[in-house]
Amino acid sequence: VNPVAWEGEAVRILDQRKLPVEEAYLECRDVESVADAIRSLAVRGAPAIGIAAGFGVALAAVRAPARSRGELLRELRRAGRMLIAARPTAVNLPWAVGRVVEAASAASDVDAAREAAVAEALAVAGREDEACLLMAELGQALVPEKANVLTHCNTGRLACAAGFGTAQGVMYAAHRAGKRVHVWVDETRPVLQGSRLTAWELQRLGVPMTLVADSAAGLLMAGGRVDLVIVGADRIAANGDVANKIGTYQLAVLAAHHGVPLYVTAPTSTIDPATPTGRDILIEERAPEEVTAPGGVPFAPAGTPALNPAFDVTPAALVTAIITERGVVRPPYRSGLRRILGHRGRRGE
Amino acid sequence: VNPVAWEGEAVRILDQRKLPVEEAYLECRDVESVADAIRSLAVRGAPAIGIAAGFGVALAAVRAPARSRGELLRELRRAGRMLIAARPTAVNLPWAVGRVVEAASAASDVDAAREAAVAEALAVAGREDEACLLMAELGQALVPEKANVLTHCNTGRLACAAGFGTAQGVMYAAHRAGKRVHVWVDETRPVLQGSRLTAWELQRLGVPMTLVADSAAGLLMAGGRVDLVIVGADRIAANGDVANKIGTYQLAVLAAHHGVPLYVTAPTSTIDPATPTGRDILIEERAPEEVTAPGGVPFAPAGTPALNPAFDVTPAALVTAIITERGVVRPPYRSGLRRILGHRGRRGE
Repeated sequence: VNPVAWEGEAVRILDQRKLPVEEAYLECRDVESVADAIRSLAVRGAPAIGIAAGFGVALAAVRAPARSRGELLRELRRAGRMLIAARPTAVNLPWAVGRVVEAASAASDVDAAREAAVAEALAVAGREDEACLLMAELGQALVPEKANVLTHCNTGRLACAAGFGTAQGVMYAAHRAGKRVHVWVDETRPVLQGSRLTAWELQRLGVPMTLVADSAAGLLMAGGRVDLVIVGADRIAANGDVANKIGTYQLAVLAAHHGVPLYVTAPTSTIDPATPTGRDILIEERAPEEVTAPGGVPFAPAGTPALNPAFDVTPAALVTAIITERGVVRPPYRSGLRRILGHRGRRGE
Repeated sequence: VNPVAWEGEAVRILDQRKLPVEEAYLECRDVESVADAIRSLAVRGAPAIGIAAGFGVALAAVRAPARSRGELLRELRRAGRMLIAARPTAVNLPWAVGRVVEAASAASDVDAAREAAVAEALAVAGREDEACLLMAELGQALVPEKANVLTHCNTGRLACAAGFGTAQGVMYAAHRAGKRVHVWVDETRPVLQGSRLTAWELQRLGVPMTLVADSAAGLLMAGGRVDLVIVGADRIAANGDVANKIGTYQLAVLAAHHGVPLYVTAPTSTIDPATPTGRDILIEERAPEEVTAPGGVPFAPAGTPALNPAFDVTPAALVTAIITERGVVRPPYRSGLRRILGHRGRRGE
């Protein structure tokens, strides 16, 4: 499965809203349709929307009728703003856009800028692919020989358009290494990424799993049936606070209460040194219908008001370790994250 | 709305599975169909299934062709066993069955036994009605003048076939008393009693409310947007441990973590002095399809394994107080619960 693919004059995006019922693809031929795919969750997951946004800027570069380098760069910046506005929480989106626009800026003329944009978008995708494989290996060393892992949302290849994903890549690597891994998959309301996507991916990969309602985690932990929690991230602040799918924070509180370790797995593109703490992260609020009408079927009475925050913030104090492609970071996170990002900071790597 | 009604030769049960779309009623003319209605969640909620089971035994009394008191009592005990087996967790079910069978046993002949069974089933319903109104008044005194209340599952008239319910009766009484109450309603997966039933009832009652996914509670509490949590119960052990809808335990851990009080509201019929602690409570496991196919619509891939515990146990240490019709009980619960049940214990009241 290839969730996001560059096709020269289009971006091909697997429409994850239709999974697991149907494997349908969108052919995005302009920036607007890439932004739409991101906004509507046809493609989702922080690394995957980063890659898609990078390709979105590359698409603008290829298709814009600009005749000068300056004109093209204005077009790329406009495209970048549109893509970044599609979803506010995952930092991978502005990160990938920034890299592609910067690469184009460094070129000397309009044609070189076009080529540089495409090359950089492909480089971003390749970098994330490698990051996922490295994280999986580093992370699987933390998984015991026999482990019940609880996970939330979807962090597989679908979420990353790379490797075998972030948190899910760790579980799969442990499974492949011969460890007896069983995964409790949170269904992950409201959009049911656990039921629809994680269950589908883990079963294709042959990893033993059991689906549960999000509200069963406490019962499982109290019964000693969870050895560790592994989740992904949408943005990691400079102090180690982690924004991730709504429900992650309460899993972290539960894990701490039961003495269960909680690992966050994310490529360095998800770490944002420009965001000092979790309080500075904008939490996207999505349409109330995702809550009132699961999968488009209305359950609540017409007109029921609903609040639908898509993410929450887990304070660094509740995170056992952050697994990145450059190493496993443990508290204190501020210095640890700074160290793995390197002296020049993330953008200058 | 009357969720459970005695009609002389039938029990009329509102089919809650069809709410809020349709207000349809089942006419149960034998014990089997009452047990079916309980098993299938046409009627649910601890007090309501207690009342329905009491009427189920009364129905057996009226309809059994028994010619002797002994024959009738054997028939009632058989009916009682079938009703009790329908759902294992709520103690209200065996409690109501026990009361009705006992009343019949005390009668001198078969006709008097029939009459006594019907009278006692009606008395059980009347007692729960009064209990709900008393709890609401006692409980509302604990609600601040301006309060954001978080609740889980459905604890209204639908759950109790009595008054305005247990936990929900408290919220409604506070609202009617002029307090500025706003309720965060957990949708309550897997059966969505919050979306389908609590949202419907609170809106009919005019109580301001907002529906949220079960996984949003942590975010709301961390943001200071929850002043108290009020829930119902399916069985309260002698030590104060509380079995209630799956997800209650993790709300209790979160409430304790954030310094938010958690109140349990339940009539004394839900307290089981014969169950020493929460470990002795049997937790019902329901069909995995409730998780894999919300509202009958499959979301997970075919054959996805799922675990579906319907309840969990909240240890007494996480419960701020238990609101009953005989008073508000605070820790230590063992002595407090014994005191309100009276010297002769529950059955002998």
